[in-house]
Amino acid sequence: MSHEPLALADALASFEALWSPRIVTRVNDYDVRVAKVHGEHVWHAHDDTDEFFLVLEGELRISLREPDGERTVVLPRGAVFTVPRGTEHRPSAPSGAAILMFEPTGTSTVGDRHEAVPAHVDATTGHVLGS
Amino acid sequence: MSHEPLALADALASFEALWSPRIVTRVNDYDVRVAKVHGEHVWHAHDDTDEFFLVLEGELRISLREPDGERTVVLPRGAVFTVPRGTEHRPSAPSGAAILMFEPTGTSTVGDRHEAVPAHVDATTGHVLGS
Repeated sequence: MSHEPLALADALASFEALWSPRIVTRVNDYDVRVAKVHGEHVWHAHDDTDEFFLVLEGELRISLREPDGERTVVLPRGAVFTVPRGTEHRPSAPSGAAILMFEPTGTSTVGDRHEAVPAHVDATTGHVLGS
Repeated sequence: MSHEPLALADALASFEALWSPRIVTRVNDYDVRVAKVHGEHVWHAHDDTDEFFLVLEGELRISLREPDGERTVVLPRGAVFTVPRGTEHRPSAPSGAAILMFEPTGTSTVGDRHEAVPAHVDATTGHVLGS
């Protein structure tokens, strides 16, 4: 990892792939990742970790299956939300968005349990920026 | 912690204190904190953890004492930087800034080793938002 400050705008400008996070820095055994997103991700759950989202550009929606039923939270630019471990969720962005995530290194984009992964979703633990 | 999205602008508008982080959400045993800063913090080091910074508004500088000498990195709005564990550092913001940090819950703002803490620096492990 570089030991210089990194502009998130430059990081986002360095790739085009959707739903394919890039790791911008590490904090202990956690990754800070950024991703460009558009359309729907897949329903999935992380059994052993929470997952943090910050919206950098656009609007992100996260559908959640909770004990009381299903709901969708809407995150405009500059909003944050943490999906609790074990909660099935499906991010989506009908008009596109850029997001920052914070989660343990090795966390898969499709979690430990998931629907069939469509071709437009990258099942990955994050890519090194610039690769 | 609320289980609704939180606008960071609203979180920042809810307090005035400088160098006094508010915890906006938790991710496993980590805090996401925001702070308003202006002027100089204090030289300090966290022996057991890295510390992540994202600049939300303004410009943050972080002076670092590294094996090869001292340097200062400059983070404009939208830039990120991780201070490695054990590295003495001193954040400053001559013109003021708003920042977001990730670090383990319980991490002190003045680290495990620090200079005398001046009155304008809040030695804290973070305050609950709204308190």
